[in-house]
Amino acid sequence: MKTIGIVTSGGDAPGMNAAIRAVTRLAHSKGFQVYGFEKGWEGLLTNTYRVLTPRSVGGIIQLGGTILRTSRCLEFAKKEGKKKAAKALAKDKIEGLVVVGGNGSMKGAYELSKEASTLMVGVPATIDNDVYGTDETIGFDTAANTAVAEIDKIRDTAISHERIFIVEVMGRTRGFLASTVGLTVGAEIILIPEVPCNKQAIIKTLKESAKKGKKSSIIVAAEGIGDTRKLAKELEEKTGSEVRLSILGYAQRGGSPTARSRLLANLFANHAVQLLARGQGNRIVGLRNGKITSIELEKSCAQEKPLDLNLLKLANVLAT
Amino acid sequence: MKTIGIVTSGGDAPGMNAAIRAVTRLAHSKGFQVYGFEKGWEGLLTNTYRVLTPRSVGGIIQLGGTILRTSRCLEFAKKEGKKKAAKALAKDKIEGLVVVGGNGSMKGAYELSKEASTLMVGVPATIDNDVYGTDETIGFDTAANTAVAEIDKIRDTAISHERIFIVEVMGRTRGFLASTVGLTVGAEIILIPEVPCNKQAIIKTLKESAKKGKKSSIIVAAEGIGDTRKLAKELEEKTGSEVRLSILGYAQRGGSPTARSRLLANLFANHAVQLLARGQGNRIVGLRNGKITSIELEKSCAQEKPLDLNLLKLANVLAT
Amino acid sequence: MKTIGIVTSGGDAPGMNAAIRAVTRLAHSKGFQVYGFEKGWEGLLTNTYRVLTPRSVGGIIQLGGTILRTSRCLEFAKKEGKKKAAKALAKDKIEGLVVVGGNGSMKGAYELSKEASTLMVGVPATIDNDVYGTDETIGFDTAANTAVAEIDKIRDTAISHERIFIVEVMGRTRGFLASTVGLTVGAEIILIPEVPCNKQAIIKTLKESAKKGKKSSIIVAAEGIGDTRKLAKELEEKTGSEVRLSILGYAQRGGSPTARSRLLANLFANHAVQLLARGQGNRIVGLRNGKITSIELEKSCAQEKPLDLNLLKLANVLAT
Amino acid sequence: MKTIGIVTSGGDAPGMNAAIRAVTRLAHSKGFQVYGFEKGWEGLLTNTYRVLTPRSVGGIIQLGGTILRTSRCLEFAKKEGKKKAAKALAKDKIEGLVVVGGNGSMKGAYELSKEASTLMVGVPATIDNDVYGTDETIGFDTAANTAVAEIDKIRDTAISHERIFIVEVMGRTRGFLASTVGLTVGAEIILIPEVPCNKQAIIKTLKESAKKGKKSSIIVAAEGIGDTRKLAKELEEKTGSEVRLSILGYAQRGGSPTARSRLLANLFANHAVQLLARGQGNRIVGLRNGKITSIELEKSCAQEKPLDLNLLKLANVLAT
Repeated sequence: MKTIGIVTSGGDAPGMNAAIRAVTRLAHSKGFQVYGFEKGWEGLLTNTYRVLTPRSVGGIIQLGGTILRTSRCLEFAKKEGKKKAAKALAKDKIEGLVVVGGNGSMKGAYELSKEASTLMVGVPATIDNDVYGTDETIGFDTAANTAVAEIDKIRDTAISHERIFIVEVMGRTRGFLASTVGLTVGAEIILIPEVPCNKQAIIKTLKESAKKGKKSSIIVAAEGIGDTRKLAKELEEKTGSEVRLSILGYAQRGGSPTARSRLLANLFANHAVQLLARGQGNRIVGLRNGKITSIELEKSCAQEKPLDLNLLKLANVLAT
Repeated sequence: MKTIGIVTSGGDAPGMNAAIRAVTRLAHSKGFQVYGFEKGWEGLLTNTYRVLTPRSVGGIIQLGGTILRTSRCLEFAKKEGKKKAAKALAKDKIEGLVVVGGNGSMKGAYELSKEASTLMVGVPATIDNDVYGTDETIGFDTAANTAVAEIDKIRDTAISHERIFIVEVMGRTRGFLASTVGLTVGAEIILIPEVPCNKQAIIKTLKESAKKGKKSSIIVAAEGIGDTRKLAKELEEKTGSEVRLSILGYAQRGGSPTARSRLLANLFANHAVQLLARGQGNRIVGLRNGKITSIELEKSCAQEKPLDLNLLKLANVLAT
Repeated sequence: MKTIGIVTSGGDAPGMNAAIRAVTRLAHSKGFQVYGFEKGWEGLLTNTYRVLTPRSVGGIIQLGGTILRTSRCLEFAKKEGKKKAAKALAKDKIEGLVVVGGNGSMKGAYELSKEASTLMVGVPATIDNDVYGTDETIGFDTAANTAVAEIDKIRDTAISHERIFIVEVMGRTRGFLASTVGLTVGAEIILIPEVPCNKQAIIKTLKESAKKGKKSSIIVAAEGIGDTRKLAKELEEKTGSEVRLSILGYAQRGGSPTARSRLLANLFANHAVQLLARGQGNRIVGLRNGKITSIELEKSCAQEKPLDLNLLKLANVLAT
Repeated sequence: MKTIGIVTSGGDAPGMNAAIRAVTRLAHSKGFQVYGFEKGWEGLLTNTYRVLTPRSVGGIIQLGGTILRTSRCLEFAKKEGKKKAAKALAKDKIEGLVVVGGNGSMKGAYELSKEASTLMVGVPATIDNDVYGTDETIGFDTAANTAVAEIDKIRDTAISHERIFIVEVMGRTRGFLASTVGLTVGAEIILIPEVPCNKQAIIKTLKESAKKGKKSSIIVAAEGIGDTRKLAKELEEKTGSEVRLSILGYAQRGGSPTARSRLLANLFANHAVQLLARGQGNRIVGLRNGKITSIELEKSCAQEKPLDLNLLKLANVLAT
C-alpha cells in the first residue's frame, strides 16, 4: 500500500480532527502517503484533496469540527455518484480509504465499496452514537458532557424559579444521547423515541415529584420524540405549573473533544491503519466489550444498534 | 439600624448568591440582623423568611441561581399587594431592604418604597443589563461568557459545514447581551431590537462575506428582534445557502458566576450596606464610569438605559 | 437486610457524591435504611453518621468532593482500629457497608471484613485509576479532562514562547492518568513510573522534534516519576532551550464530575446495592470489558493493576 | 499613513490574537497595510514579519497565545538593539507600530520611540494587570476566571478533607490577580507583595476561622510574596492542621479569552488605530473610569500602578 485517503462525511463530531491527525501520522509511520478529501463525498466527486503530512495535522487534536470540512452530498447518494467517486479513487491510486462519520457515512462507504477496488475502513464518529458495531462513537462523550454542563446550569434557574424544564438534546432518531445525559444530570423524566411517550405517565410522575417535595423537575427529551414545543404547552396546561423549554442546539456538535473522544479517535485510527496495512478492508472499527475491534461494513449497515433500556430503568429509580 | 431584609426577585442571574452572602456578612459586621425573604416578593406577602447568618451563607459564592429562590408575583404587582408587603416589613421591624434583581424588581422596590417606611436599596442583577444607573449588572458578564463559549462551539460546526448560523441570545426587549456577545465572537451580523432589522442589508452582507471568501457566517440575534425561526427560513430562501438556527436558552441564566459577576456582587453589596448603615435608602447602587456609586431609585425607574451603538459599528468593521 | 452504611475514604474523587446519591436511592427502593458515616473510617471509629434519605441526597449529583467528607485515618490502620470499627457496625446493626474509595480504602475494607460480619462492597473511586478489578474508576475521567483542559491552555503559551513544558499530573505511584492525558493532549513525551526514565532518550526526542520543525514540546510526567523540578533544570542545561514546569495540583481531584464519572458512579452503585440485596459481600464492583461486574475484595487487594504500555507506544508514534 | 506594524512582546496573554485581528481589520478599513513582526522584538531585529490581511487574521479571535509568537529579547534590551530595530522600521517604512504587551513591552516601546520616528502606540495586554494608565489589561479577566475555576475545584477537595490550602497565583511582583481572585473565590486570607506578610496574623485568622466552624480554609497567595513552599510548611507546624500547596501555573496565561478580554482587545485596538490615523503616537491606550482613552507612554513608564487595598479590606470582612 502506498497511498490512502481520508474523508469526513455527514454531520461533524468533536474528535474528527484527532482522528485525521492520528490516521495521517500512523499511516506515515508505515510509509503511506495520505490524501485528505475535502467537504465529504463531494471531495471525491470533484477529486478535491490536499496531501496531509505529520506537520500539516499538527495542532489540531484539540479542535472541534473537521479541518477537511464535511457536507451532505446529494450526487453521491445516487449510483452514478458512487461510480464517479470510484473512478476518482482509481485515478488517484488510492488503495485504502478511511471514512470518518456516522451511520449514513458508513452506508455510503459500503455502497462505494461495491463500485471501487479501494479498501474501505469506517471510523465511527457521530454524537448520535447510533452506529452498529461499536459501543461508543467518537464525539458522543463530548456531546454528552456539553449537554450535561448546559443542563447543570439550567437546573440552577429551574430550582430558583421552581419550574419544570424540558430540555431537548440531539440524537436524530435515536435516544442514546438523551439516555446518558438524562441519567447523568439526574433528570426526573427521560423521553426517547425507542419508548412510546405516555403523557399520562409523565404528568403522574411530575405530580408525584411535587408531592415528594421536589420543587423543580428536569425532563430530558431526545429530538427524535417529536414536537417538544407542543409537549411543553400540553404539560403546562395539565400540571398547572410553569413549564419552560430549552433546545440545546448545534453547540452539542462542536467544541474541543473530551479526553475520551480523543482517546477513541486515536485508538480507532490506529486500528483502521493496521487493517489497511494488513490489506483488510470493508470493515468498520469500534469499541466492543472494552476492546478495539472491527466488524464487516456490510454487517454494520444491515443492523440497527440496540439501545440498553436498563439505563432508563435505573434513571427512573434514581430520580425518586 | 437593627434588622435588614434581602430579597431576590424576577429572573435569576448568576452572582445573586454572591450578593446574598456579601450583604449578610457585611451587615453582620455592622451588627445588623439579616432576614432573607423567600421566593421574591411572594416571601414578603406571606412573610416567609429565614434568618441569614455568616455561616448559613457559606459555600454559596460560586453557585448559580439564588438560594432564596425567586418568582414573578402577580399579587405584588397590584397596589394592595404592595401595602401587604409594607405591613409585613413594619411588623418584622425591617428597617432596610436590599432588593436584588432587574428592571422590574427595581420598579417594584420603588413602588414599595411609597407604601413602606423601610429604606429600599436596589442591587441590579440581571443578565439583560438593562437597568438604568449602572453600566453593568450582576450576571451580565457570566451570561455573555456562557453565550460566547456556546457560539465558539457552534462556529466549529458552522465552518465544517460551511453554513450560516443564526444564534438567538437572551436580553428580553434589549440588545445589550447580543451586542457584547456578537462583537466578542466575531459575528458577521448582529441584530438587536434597538436597530430596525433590514433584511435586504442582511442578505447583502451575507453575499459580500461569501465573496470575500468567508465560508460560514454567524448572525447573533437578540431575542427581542422577533421570530428568528421565520428569519432563518427567509434567509435560506433568499441566499440559497443552508441556514441553521440555534436558540441559546436558559443556560444563559444559570451557571457559576464569573470572577467579574462575583466582584460586582461583592462591591454592590458593600455599597448597599454602607448606604443603609448611613440611613440612606430608596437608591440603587451601580457601576458608573468605573466607580461604585448610587442614584435614586425613582430616577432609575423613570429612564431607559441607553445602548451604545458604537459597539455595533465597531463589530461591523471587525467582521470584514 | 434492613440497614446499610456508606463511607467515602482516602483521597476524594469527582463522582463520589453521585455514588452516595445512587446508593442511597437504590437502597431505599429496596426498603433499606442508609447510614452515611462521616470523615472516612474515622466516622466508624467514632460512630458518627447521618441517616441518608432520597431527599437528603438531592442536588448533589453534580458536586465535586464528598458530602460525607473523608480523611486518612491512622487509628483505623491498626488492628485495634478495625476491631473498634467492627464493633460500631455490629452495634448499629449495619448489615452491609459500601466503601467508596481507592486502593487503600479497598484494602481497609478487606481487612475490616475479617473483623466484622457486615458484608463489605467496594466501589472504586479514585483519580489514580489504580484499583485492580476495574478498567476504570469513578473520577478518573474527570481528572483526565481537567488535566487535558489545563494542558490545552499551557500549549497556547508554549507555542507562543516556543518553549518546552514539563507538566506534572497526579496519579500517585502509577502512570494511568499521565498515559491517558499525555496521549490525548498530543504530548511529545510521556513519563510514567512504570517505565524507567531515560534522560538521554528524552533529550534525543526533544532535539529530533526541534529538527522536524516543532517549536514547542509538552512533556507529561506522572508525579510518581520523582523530582520534576530537578528534571526541568537538567533538560534546560542539556538542550539549551527554555524549559518550564507546571504542576497541575489538587484541582485534578475536584470539580463537577464528567458525564462518564457520573455514569460509572450510578452503575457501580447499582451493582453494589444489588450484591448486598442478594446477600453477597466482600466484593468490589467494577467495569471489565465494557460490563459492570464484581470480583472478590481479597483478589483485588492481592494484585497490582497492570498498565497497558500500548498507549505509550501509540503516543510515541502520534507525537511524530 | 500607509503601513503600520504590530508586535506582541513579553509574556503572552489571552486576547492578544483578538487584538491582532482587530488592529489588522481596523487598519485595513482605513487603507493601511499591516506587517506583523514575529517573536516579539526579535522580529524587528531580524526584520521578520508577515503581511497581515483581514482574511489571514480570521478565526483567531477565540484563540489563546499569539499567532505572532513572542519572546523575551536580550539584544533589544541594549541600546544598540533598539537602534537596530529603529533602522528596520525605517527601512520597511513602518509609520506606526502597535506594541501589544505588558509593563516591560511598554518600556521597550518608549525606549524605541527615542530612536525611531515611527509612532508608537502601546496596547496593554498582560495577565498581571500592572500597566500604569489602564484600570484593566487584556488577558487579566481571563486569567482571573481560570484561577477562580481552578480554586473552585480545589475547594471541593479542601472541604472534603477539612484541609488548609495555599493556592499560589501569578502576577509577577504585584498583587492585582491575587486580590481579585482571592475576593471572588471567597478566600479566607489573601497574601500580596504590597502588604507585608504577617505570619502571626495568618495563624490567628486560621485559628479563628476554625473556631467559627470553618472546616477548611483557602489562602490565595501572589507569586510575588516569596516562597510559598516554606510558608506551607511553617503554617502546618504552627497550626497543627494539614496544609496543602497548589501552584496554579502557566495555564493562567493561556486559554480562550473571556468575553471581557476580547472586548477590551477590540476597544483598545480601535483606539490605537484611531490614534495612528490621526498621526498621534507615543501613547498607551487604556480603560480609565469606564472609558477608553490614552496617556503618554512616558508617563505610563514613569509610574507604578497603584493597587486598591480596599479590595483586601472588603475580602477580610467577607471571609468572616
